[in-house]
Amino acid sequence: MLLCMPFSVYYGEDWFYILISGLITIVCGSTTWLLTKNHKSKELKKKDGYLIVTLGWFFMSLFGTLPFILSGAIPNFTDAFFETISGFTTTGASVLNNIEGVPKGILFWRSLTQWIGGMGIIVLAVAILPILGIGGMQLFIAEAPGISPDKMKPRIKDVAKRLWFIYLGLTVTETVLLLLGGMTFFDALNHSLTTMATGGFSTKNKSVAHYDSAYIQYVIIAFMFLAGTNFTITYYCLKGRLKKAWANEEFRMYFILVAVLSICISFFVFSSSWTGFEKSFRDSLFQVVSLITTTGFVTADYTSWTPFLTIVFFMLMFLGASAGSTAGGIKVVRHTLLFKNSFLEMKRQLHPSAVIPVRLNNSAVSRDITYNVLAFVMIYLLVYVVGVFLISFTGVDFDTALGAVATSLGNIGPGLGQVGPVNNFSSITPFGKWLLATLMLLGRLELFTVLMLFNPNFWQKY
Amino acid sequence: MLLCMPFSVYYGEDWFYILISGLITIVCGSTTWLLTKNHKSKELKKKDGYLIVTLGWFFMSLFGTLPFILSGAIPNFTDAFFETISGFTTTGASVLNNIEGVPKGILFWRSLTQWIGGMGIIVLAVAILPILGIGGMQLFIAEAPGISPDKMKPRIKDVAKRLWFIYLGLTVTETVLLLLGGMTFFDALNHSLTTMATGGFSTKNKSVAHYDSAYIQYVIIAFMFLAGTNFTITYYCLKGRLKKAWANEEFRMYFILVAVLSICISFFVFSSSWTGFEKSFRDSLFQVVSLITTTGFVTADYTSWTPFLTIVFFMLMFLGASAGSTAGGIKVVRHTLLFKNSFLEMKRQLHPSAVIPVRLNNSAVSRDITYNVLAFVMIYLLVYVVGVFLISFTGVDFDTALGAVATSLGNIGPGLGQVGPVNNFSSITPFGKWLLATLMLLGRLELFTVLMLFNPNFWQKY
Repeated sequence: MLLCMPFSVYYGEDWFYILISGLITIVCGSTTWLLTKNHKSKELKKKDGYLIVTLGWFFMSLFGTLPFILSGAIPNFTDAFFETISGFTTTGASVLNNIEGVPKGILFWRSLTQWIGGMGIIVLAVAILPILGIGGMQLFIAEAPGISPDKMKPRIKDVAKRLWFIYLGLTVTETVLLLLGGMTFFDALNHSLTTMATGGFSTKNKSVAHYDSAYIQYVIIAFMFLAGTNFTITYYCLKGRLKKAWANEEFRMYFILVAVLSICISFFVFSSSWTGFEKSFRDSLFQVVSLITTTGFVTADYTSWTPFLTIVFFMLMFLGASAGSTAGGIKVVRHTLLFKNSFLEMKRQLHPSAVIPVRLNNSAVSRDITYNVLAFVMIYLLVYVVGVFLISFTGVDFDTALGAVATSLGNIGPGLGQVGPVNNFSSITPFGKWLLATLMLLGRLELFTVLMLFNPNFWQKY
Repeated sequence: MLLCMPFSVYYGEDWFYILISGLITIVCGSTTWLLTKNHKSKELKKKDGYLIVTLGWFFMSLFGTLPFILSGAIPNFTDAFFETISGFTTTGASVLNNIEGVPKGILFWRSLTQWIGGMGIIVLAVAILPILGIGGMQLFIAEAPGISPDKMKPRIKDVAKRLWFIYLGLTVTETVLLLLGGMTFFDALNHSLTTMATGGFSTKNKSVAHYDSAYIQYVIIAFMFLAGTNFTITYYCLKGRLKKAWANEEFRMYFILVAVLSICISFFVFSSSWTGFEKSFRDSLFQVVSLITTTGFVTADYTSWTPFLTIVFFMLMFLGASAGSTAGGIKVVRHTLLFKNSFLEMKRQLHPSAVIPVRLNNSAVSRDITYNVLAFVMIYLLVYVVGVFLISFTGVDFDTALGAVATSLGNIGPGLGQVGPVNNFSSITPFGKWLLATLMLLGRLELFTVLMLFNPNFWQKY
């Protein structure tokens, strides 16, 4: 939070409330740390993992509301919590009607929540969740390491450092490239922070549509795509091992999906509008990448194109980019696995006695993992259905209900109807906001991490 | 078809076209039978099962169009095929704008297609599909019998006879009860045929809303519920073994779902309208039972109540009643299994080395079957998504697209929007009609039966 103060000072804003927020957080954090310090020697168990991750995200979001509330930018607690958890979960759904009227220091904090959230997710996805047996990344690991805490700690530290370096490097690179495109330093930095987190908070009311420059939009497209790529793959790419990256089935599928969808959609957009082909292509590519990577930046109102494209974009909300990236949603690797498994199921029925495993990256996927992925997708859809059911109580219409829940659970940002790309979430009732906030957290932590805590088995012999 | 002639004669209509249609069908059928007679001794293989069932339904629907086309009731082939396959798959989606203007003989044929379709489905669901390893009924069978054709034939014949007797008996009973309610014999018979098939074709433009009598509506509710019950359970009930019926987990879930949903929804309807409580309850119960059992009769426009209830009813389209009934859709037993499995998956993650099977009716469900059910639901949703994607090309709006595909794949009848309960499918383009017709067949034959034929493995060494 204190990092926001220089911006407040520079723009001549009131920095006092940010300082207070920072101090409150430091005092509460330190007190907790001091009180629990003596338990430090205790071994970390698998169960602790679920609890630490869920509570971590929750308390980050709770204390993260302070700058919003104290500065008066978002005086209402429900709204402030919605905005903050939307930040830390890298969703990007906003309740702000006039973003440009918010003090710069607060806007920077808003962007920073996403960047910090993204940072957390990288470590979570690549290092912690596979150990807990969830998140899709276990698909890439032949043998999940045991849960011995002495092995776990150095592994996490080591992986985290390497990936954060890439994350930081890409953020800096994007900032420089956006500066070259004529953005101010403040806007360039903010957009870079929220691009790399696949968050989608913008400092402009019209999101990226504010910038009419093709250069700026293509830069953001490129970095959204990178942010939606498995960071381990990006690491290989940076080391020049492009073949190894291309050998990864999820990356190939992700690349092909983006390419094919953008090209097809741009033809539709081109044929139904009078803008040039380059603009149609750029708008289509931007929206496809933005939704698949669950970023949620907007350059055009995709729900106003045609009913057909609205449905396509609605479906894209369920895709999600790569596992091990900052993107939310179901993820391409899970879809690939399910798609393959569905076809093989028919083969299995013809040959009931044969063992026919799903193959991914040329090796057989164990049945336990396939089973787990199937269960994940079922729970995702179940949570989706329950979410739509509950949000309907608030009186929103059909499109809004389906869109708001899809976008929250998938950590995207804009939805359909009342919460579409040119609207925001301010019109949702408080109950609706708490519900969507819960869905963001559920989606971000790959469901199991949070739901596990509500399982009576979890608390037995804790 | 020839059974329709008495009605044509009685109502003084032109019966000649029905006779011609019947004769064409008899000639084509006999020729095929004569030509293939010598192959009779050849053993039936599992693969033949898929082929016979799919082609059977297709050719029934093809020849079933003759009365519609020749009589001029539905002169267009696409429309006639849509109406006929909607009949044989017991869907009940119609293209007729003025049902009451169609000759009675043709209307009877329309209802009869559903009754025949329902008859086929009972045998298919209870006797054939479990042998092919699909359909959900395998969940109730501890050991699926081997595929030896000499065992298969008597089993099917025996089961079929017993169940058809119940089917026929219930149809006659309902006809008598409806007659007592003041319906004409023709209307009572037609509505009974389409109730028992969970089809939903009515002889009235306003469907069951035409009959303002509470008695008639409650009778139809009761028989829709029965038609959505596993026929093996109904058999136990008729034999007085009610305890055995209640011991069945799917039946209990089905009963509870109907009861709870109807009561909750009737409170919503009551609170938002000025009709009496009995009428609100009856309308709610009717629509809930009609959608869950995938019948599709209508007494009120449920899409005009509140946005919340539209969403609830949309969700009900994915439920489906019991396996082993004439209902379509995913079925309650599959949902139960998935729901249980999802919760157990979390328990499995806490205890990765323990084997934790799903239990249904107090016995462990084998992992193969759970896997198969998971794959079924995934393919169902995949087909749904592809269907929505394709139907969007025809230019229909968001609600219509989601509703039309849900209702076709689930063999229900009415959808949402343009194809809602007070509208029909006449406005859909020919491409859309063929697509929905395909979805009806896919849904009706539990996906695998049809999709199997498009699997290259199927045709290898046929």
